Amino acid sequence: MQISMHAMSHGVFKKALSQLLHVMEKGVANAKARNFDVSVLVNSRLAPDMLPFVRQIQLASDFAKNSLARLAAVDPPKMEDTETTMDELLARVKKTLDYLDSVPSAALEGSETRPIVIKLRDRTLEFQGLEFLQIWALPNFFFHHVTAYNLLRHNGVDIGKRDFLGR
Amino acid sequence: MQISMHAMSHGVFKKALSQLLHVMEKGVANAKARNFDVSVLVNSRLAPDMLPFVRQIQLASDFAKNSLARLAAVDPPKMEDTETTMDELLARVKKTLDYLDSVPSAALEGSETRPIVIKLRDRTLEFQGLEFLQIWALPNFFFHHVTAYNLLRHNGVDIGKRDFLGR
Repeated sequence: MQISMHAMSHGVFKKALSQLLHVMEKGVANAKARNFDVSVLVNSRLAPDMLPFVRQIQLASDFAKNSLARLAAVDPPKMEDTETTMDELLARVKKTLDYLDSVPSAALEGSETRPIVIKLRDRTLEFQGLEFLQIWALPNFFFHHVTAYNLLRHNGVDIGKRDFLGR
Repeated sequence: MQISMHAMSHGVFKKALSQLLHVMEKGVANAKARNFDVSVLVNSRLAPDMLPFVRQIQLASDFAKNSLARLAAVDPPKMEDTETTMDELLARVKKTLDYLDSVPSAALEGSETRPIVIKLRDRTLEFQGLEFLQIWALPNFFFHHVTAYNLLRHNGVDIGKRDFLGR
């Protein structure tokens, strides 16, 4: 084991998304056990002006795949954000995991100094690869991942930190 | 800039905790503007059986300082978890930031292969340093950090992802 840009992106995203699948599956089982439609969870929000669960999952997927692709200097697969059901969201996360594994670690060699430009609606951000990973890719990814977890937890799904961490 | 265990622990925690301070300060200002006691935020929870804001901050602090100390093979400063007010929590985060800066980056050289043992109530976890950072330290840290953010957001504090990220 050696520290590398690949280990600190792919290695973090892969484990976290695998746990996200597990937490989502517990949401499905909980809706069944409590006899409500799982779409209530899919559309739930922590505040009226905050993105719903479905968008949190799409964005966690985006930050994982797009960040790895940017570091590898390749184009990420475009996913159309058409999911409306938990089954479709589970498939989205699995597809994201497959993509992460398809990027060879060698493609990230030297990416710590690679210039990365992010165009947002109202401004453009410029990073070197290391800083991009430290203060953009990882915080953004976890922001949406943990918010998805919190949405399920807030709605009474029987999950705990051990489900989130996987150990 | 070069990727290192120090860059991927200290560098991530420091930026994130600085943004946590900012978000907490917006909570203080919002309570004042809406004319309620900020202790409502300090004691708020996303679910009745979930830890309140005060514990989320203490745990974010713990995972930052204790993880860096473990990687450096030094004893972390013990903080007594006696905070009950937002002012005390702000001081706790500042003290944590000071500690992070006091650990020399050289102390983490080679820490990617350092054996790390975590004793929990009911089990013992063993990691090498890199895996500890990937699947324990970073996810645990962001778990509590993002949950603290979500608690404020859920309670109507006027924060957005830009406050969380700082760019």
